[in-house]
Amino acid sequence: MFRDRFSYAIENIGMSPIVGISEEAMALEPFFKARTGKSFLYFQRGEMGYDTPDYIKIALIKALLDGKTKYPKSSGEGLLKLAIVDRLKQDSVRNISVKNIVCTAGGQEALQLSFRLFDGEKGATFSPFWSCISENQAPYASIDLQEVCLNDDFSIDFNVLEEMLSNVSFFYFNNPQNPTGKVFSREDVEKIAYLCYTHGVYLISDEAYQDIVFDGEKHFSASLIDLPNIICAFTFSKSFAMTGWRLGYVFVRDVDMAEKLTRANYTQTAGVPPFIQYAGAEALNNHELREHHLVMKLREFEAKRDRMYKGLQEINKLTIHKPGGAFYFFPSFANFIPKGLSEEDYKMFIHKLLLEEGVVVIPGYCFGTGFEANVRLSFSTTSLEEIDDGVARIKKALSRL
Amino acid sequence: MFRDRFSYAIENIGMSPIVGISEEAMALEPFFKARTGKSFLYFQRGEMGYDTPDYIKIALIKALLDGKTKYPKSSGEGLLKLAIVDRLKQDSVRNISVKNIVCTAGGQEALQLSFRLFDGEKGATFSPFWSCISENQAPYASIDLQEVCLNDDFSIDFNVLEEMLSNVSFFYFNNPQNPTGKVFSREDVEKIAYLCYTHGVYLISDEAYQDIVFDGEKHFSASLIDLPNIICAFTFSKSFAMTGWRLGYVFVRDVDMAEKLTRANYTQTAGVPPFIQYAGAEALNNHELREHHLVMKLREFEAKRDRMYKGLQEINKLTIHKPGGAFYFFPSFANFIPKGLSEEDYKMFIHKLLLEEGVVVIPGYCFGTGFEANVRLSFSTTSLEEIDDGVARIKKALSRL
Repeated sequence: MFRDRFSYAIENIGMSPIVGISEEAMALEPFFKARTGKSFLYFQRGEMGYDTPDYIKIALIKALLDGKTKYPKSSGEGLLKLAIVDRLKQDSVRNISVKNIVCTAGGQEALQLSFRLFDGEKGATFSPFWSCISENQAPYASIDLQEVCLNDDFSIDFNVLEEMLSNVSFFYFNNPQNPTGKVFSREDVEKIAYLCYTHGVYLISDEAYQDIVFDGEKHFSASLIDLPNIICAFTFSKSFAMTGWRLGYVFVRDVDMAEKLTRANYTQTAGVPPFIQYAGAEALNNHELREHHLVMKLREFEAKRDRMYKGLQEINKLTIHKPGGAFYFFPSFANFIPKGLSEEDYKMFIHKLLLEEGVVVIPGYCFGTGFEANVRLSFSTTSLEEIDDGVARIKKALSRL
Repeated sequence: MFRDRFSYAIENIGMSPIVGISEEAMALEPFFKARTGKSFLYFQRGEMGYDTPDYIKIALIKALLDGKTKYPKSSGEGLLKLAIVDRLKQDSVRNISVKNIVCTAGGQEALQLSFRLFDGEKGATFSPFWSCISENQAPYASIDLQEVCLNDDFSIDFNVLEEMLSNVSFFYFNNPQNPTGKVFSREDVEKIAYLCYTHGVYLISDEAYQDIVFDGEKHFSASLIDLPNIICAFTFSKSFAMTGWRLGYVFVRDVDMAEKLTRANYTQTAGVPPFIQYAGAEALNNHELREHHLVMKLREFEAKRDRMYKGLQEINKLTIHKPGGAFYFFPSFANFIPKGLSEEDYKMFIHKLLLEEGVVVIPGYCFGTGFEANVRLSFSTTSLEEIDDGVARIKKALSRL
């Protein structure tokens, strides 16, 4: 009598293959250890290798002891929203106020609410892209998600993009990009935004890695563009090592849309705990410590990126692009995969090969179509020594071919 | 070119009239003060009049300093889920494990996820009922929500209920009940659950006020019934004065359903901040302090309820039921409202009359149909003196009729 199937949204959420791959690797590690005496090297993680800075924790504790424990204000406390507006203004965003901001339970809820605006419609994104979009956000909002393949060098074919835009309600864009580490140029971002605009398409710009940009550069945020179709999802997770705090926000140009998202946010969670919001405000407002921690973190990430880049470059026939942001490499092993494999064997080949040497990576197929010969390597939680060891093991694995 | 309408879910969420009424009252207070020298008495609030107990705050601080700041485990950390299972077992719930539990961002997300199981289907609930259900949860899941009117004494007409159950996918049930303060008997709960079961209907039992039950009684939780159609939404908000912490959970008998809800929870928020979960575990596990705070709180609530009951009883022709739980009275002023009013004037009459004496209440129409002559008075945040003052003012207002 009782059902085993429920709504489309609930039934069609997938599980990221990344989770399965990570769990499988962890189960295999003891056998590898027994055989080789060595540990696995985990290059598959998207977690931060740092704890939240103390000044943010202290701000939470103060708010907590000060009794900021009652129902939050929907869309966010004034203090936090003002801090966010200040930050955006520092980044040169113009014509904004607290009315453009809706605070959310992390970047995740920021994206999820944005997708729900378009329940049952069509959307598109560049491939490769973050697996959570196809596995979770699209099905949960009953979105028919189309892919626009980037070129092999991760550049954009604007003709293909424009053709797609005539056919969808929104375009999901991630900059800096997971899994490639690519930072799209100002020219690219503006062109995408205006193309969307002229086709009546909303641009959902996921800027989770906004502060993880190397070589003294800054990424060009879609929030800088004053068009009514701009929706930006931000999170404190990566900028402040606050992944577990679940604090993010949506920035939208359309103030009516912000009110609608506020009601939806209230309906889902009733808002973010006030003491977390107070801590988030301090994270932004304490410019000195914010800058100090970010500079330290970027320096360390850059050193890791450079070390990994140097190592991977020594591998002949590996196609590799130096990431400008985030903490991922997404090299192509196309020149190493034997001819004549089945589709299934092809897409798992490099992953399995590297796993034999105890190197855990995420195969490219997890990030959409067109990059089945690539793998994602994260350097967020690994040390320089582990990076060296990892590169050496990759070389060894490839030398057996 | 750009849209002003989005998905059905986003467009159809209402705003609780309670918010508007509260805001209007606050705007009027200065004029009242200028005229009378007195303050408004706010009997409309659903907030707790207490701060979170220190032992729970300390547990959060410990977890925070211990680095529990990374991505949470979807559906909840083992420690918290075990504490929840322990609590349910203490309450004599049988045949359960952590697999029956999904932790959520408050009772709000627990309900919202439960409703989304039934996207686009029909549901029903007893009237009167919490306005958030009709204004937020039902439209957000595109639910066609039907009402089964309770009798004037808040008893159930099981014939009407059964007729409705042949026609819906789920029944939303709130026990102890907002806005009546009614605690439904074991017999009632069992009868509802089995009726639902025989009609293939899920029972979504909202037990937000589970611990706010007076006179040494305990409410009979639907979680005690071992039927596959049981879904219970719980929250830490009222039991531990943690309204702002956004911590709750769904208990379901169907383990597959729990897995689906876990994925949906991951998709929405990625889970509850770990340091909040650790604090929630301590809230439950520290039996001594949990009991101490609850006993103190219940003693105070009972004193307030008794004082208000005594006062309201002195008003002739007021129809009043002594609440067994929660912190609301829902008396009927039917004998006081003049004949011949328009529908609009009728439902606002008592609210406006009392407001002239500076007493803020919520009119009955906010809680569904059939109780337009009632108003809800909350005693959660008012002192005994304010209750006395409030009753005196109500008497004065009515004496002018």
